[in-house]
Amino acid sequence: MPTAPRVLVFDIFGTVVDWHGSIVREMTVAHPQVDADAFALAWRAGYQPAMEAVRSGGRGFVKLDGLHREILDGILPRFGLGHLGEAERAGLNRLWHRLAAWPDSVAGLTRLKARFTICSLSNGNLGLLTDMAKHAGLPWDCVLSAEVFRAYKPDPRVYRGAAEVFDADPAEVLMVAAHHDDLAAARATGLQTAYIERPLEFGVAHPKDVSPRPGNTWHARDLLDLAEQLGC
Amino acid sequence: MPTAPRVLVFDIFGTVVDWHGSIVREMTVAHPQVDADAFALAWRAGYQPAMEAVRSGGRGFVKLDGLHREILDGILPRFGLGHLGEAERAGLNRLWHRLAAWPDSVAGLTRLKARFTICSLSNGNLGLLTDMAKHAGLPWDCVLSAEVFRAYKPDPRVYRGAAEVFDADPAEVLMVAAHHDDLAAARATGLQTAYIERPLEFGVAHPKDVSPRPGNTWHARDLLDLAEQLGC
Repeated sequence: MPTAPRVLVFDIFGTVVDWHGSIVREMTVAHPQVDADAFALAWRAGYQPAMEAVRSGGRGFVKLDGLHREILDGILPRFGLGHLGEAERAGLNRLWHRLAAWPDSVAGLTRLKARFTICSLSNGNLGLLTDMAKHAGLPWDCVLSAEVFRAYKPDPRVYRGAAEVFDADPAEVLMVAAHHDDLAAARATGLQTAYIERPLEFGVAHPKDVSPRPGNTWHARDLLDLAEQLGC
Repeated sequence: MPTAPRVLVFDIFGTVVDWHGSIVREMTVAHPQVDADAFALAWRAGYQPAMEAVRSGGRGFVKLDGLHREILDGILPRFGLGHLGEAERAGLNRLWHRLAAWPDSVAGLTRLKARFTICSLSNGNLGLLTDMAKHAGLPWDCVLSAEVFRAYKPDPRVYRGAAEVFDADPAEVLMVAAHHDDLAAARATGLQTAYIERPLEFGVAHPKDVSPRPGNTWHARDLLDLAEQLGC
């Protein structure tokens, strides 16, 4: 049996909120002529390369809002939206602040919160995560972000930093994510890990392999299933 | 009329929670032979000098839990408690994590939260503030702390940093505190200010002058009165 965790830290994009579905829904209304599925995937595809420039030390820390905006500016012409002005681009970029939660997220987090300290641990910036929590009703005890540690996951400083915030041994912290690379990095710094299946993270047209992999402390269908497994 | 704020940031010790009363109550039960009022005041009296060593650059950033512990170790012998062991000292130091809210705080914050983003902006560390929020039911949208900015109030980096987190003009941020020095520093960086009367912050034996001073955007009896004045 693993040690009972004291603090649960959550990846956000894809794990707690449905970025693909949210972008598709907004784009379908605002710009019906655009292939919303391809647009969502293109925007997200710029995410890792943009952060990699920070991780590698090639540039100083830039908030994710800034990276999202650079990626957006880069893809707009490709989707016939190169004519959008500053206000429209800024408004569109804030789409990441109002992503919808997966149907189980609020109920699952609420159950987990009754027993554990629950905390975001996302590459999203603090303002983005705070707006999102308010919009989607995510009941965090604390909003933690790459912005606090001036480093992007999977940089080990982020996972270690979260444990230090709570004066916790790494093994007392459970990282919850729908991405194996995030969990592997968390595990390498001594955290426990829980994989959450999100087969439709990339949309119904692109189902994801969510079969269990060795190494994770828990494997759960969704956050209600995780709460159940953790006895909440 | 001042611009409507978008984000409200709150001082915590004395403004939202009753540190003096909470320490007196716990000490009276745990160590009835000690003058709990004098003990609470002595512990708090070490607070500004301890932070000043960090502010002046004399030492690197140390979390408030660490400073509280150093002050505690310094005063224990004076109160006949020099014999306390490590576990007892650590437990006592966590008293700051479980301070009680003033009677109006949860209701006032809940009303304010419906209209504004509400956020702690305290010299308390993130873990302390998170435990406190969970214990006292404080419904923060985001927990911000000196720890995030690696600087203690009234260092201007803390107030500026809070505005930057929310991509806000300083004038869109309202600092709420029961201390004029905190508010003066916030005002100097362009924030709006609200003074909250907490006449019994230092206990019934040491009432505080809470008369209005010029310069503050608002002056409120308590957080419910502030909510009323802000139209919540």
